[in-house]
Amino acid sequence: MTGKPGKDDLKWHEGQVSPDQRAAVLGHQAACLWLTGLSGAGKSTLARAVEATLVARGVHAYALDGDNLRMGLNRDLGFSPADRSENIRRVAEVSRLLVDSGAIVLCAFISPFRRDRDHARQLMGECFAEVFLNPGLDECERRDPKGLYARARRGDLDEFTGISSPYEAPTAPELELDTGAMTLDESTAAVLNWLEAKGLVDAETGA
Amino acid sequence: MTGKPGKDDLKWHEGQVSPDQRAAVLGHQAACLWLTGLSGAGKSTLARAVEATLVARGVHAYALDGDNLRMGLNRDLGFSPADRSENIRRVAEVSRLLVDSGAIVLCAFISPFRRDRDHARQLMGECFAEVFLNPGLDECERRDPKGLYARARRGDLDEFTGISSPYEAPTAPELELDTGAMTLDESTAAVLNWLEAKGLVDAETGA
Repeated sequence: MTGKPGKDDLKWHEGQVSPDQRAAVLGHQAACLWLTGLSGAGKSTLARAVEATLVARGVHAYALDGDNLRMGLNRDLGFSPADRSENIRRVAEVSRLLVDSGAIVLCAFISPFRRDRDHARQLMGECFAEVFLNPGLDECERRDPKGLYARARRGDLDEFTGISSPYEAPTAPELELDTGAMTLDESTAAVLNWLEAKGLVDAETGA
Repeated sequence: MTGKPGKDDLKWHEGQVSPDQRAAVLGHQAACLWLTGLSGAGKSTLARAVEATLVARGVHAYALDGDNLRMGLNRDLGFSPADRSENIRRVAEVSRLLVDSGAIVLCAFISPFRRDRDHARQLMGECFAEVFLNPGLDECERRDPKGLYARARRGDLDEFTGISSPYEAPTAPELELDTGAMTLDESTAAVLNWLEAKGLVDAETGA
């Protein structure tokens, strides 16, 4: 029978480097903080602020941004429910690789579907934590940084999360932040406090 | 006009962390060593050996393996020329993210098409170096670790690189290794010497 190379011809290559060895090099364990929420909730801004704060403290942190990935890895995908799921499937795999490399990864993706976020959690296990940025739809719509809510309300935009496409809120996130009531500094501090409480990074001594 | 969210609605979020800041945290610059060659040339084995040696020296190194990625991120892709190109497009984007995070990335992909490797080089610029593992087809076929050459020679396997699908050898790789004549230790040392000569990692003092 003639065939093509297939799944059976793949061989898993186990690395020789343990997570503990990577943690010893980097000075901390790996983690994935998965920021989810509506467009305008402040996911990218918070991810970048936490990333910068951690790197300034010597932590190997890295932010993955939904828009940036849609300009590169996921440039072939649109915004249909199937493409949104594939988008999140791929970025979850990328997050897993970065976590495997030892980084503290800050993910900023709307990731509207619970099933997709649960899949990401399964991929990363104990390293994964869901951070729900929840200023409320009204506040996101008031901010409307890209003018997309206005277009969606006018009926000019299909498949826009929160208006013409569903957002399934997390039921048990590790952390929930009202980024409408909190300043960016307060949200950043809340995430850092959470990381410190989990022992993932050292509490800043201020010394 | 009713529309859907599209490319025009994406916004590039620039990070606040510079490559120099990451290098200061990690102690070295980032790089991508792109190992290319036929099945059986020893790409995964060498990538893992270099990774382990570097991590043991305190370097933040990470190996990306073709088969492993085909079990995760690229599980939806097969081995047609179009799927092979998409496979390499995605792994090049992932490599770029890891390089952006500050890692020294060891890529182990057959990556048979010159155009796809050149695209990876363009994505990563000065950080990119092509390492051609070239023990020769005869030696790869003699090793045949997965029994795939035998199947391809019997006509039982279409689209197998080197036999029923082309391999376009690099014309100007940064490093070429005859992994048929060299031991794994010798190949590993050659890669490390190259990294040291480029100033990417410190020469081991033996002290």
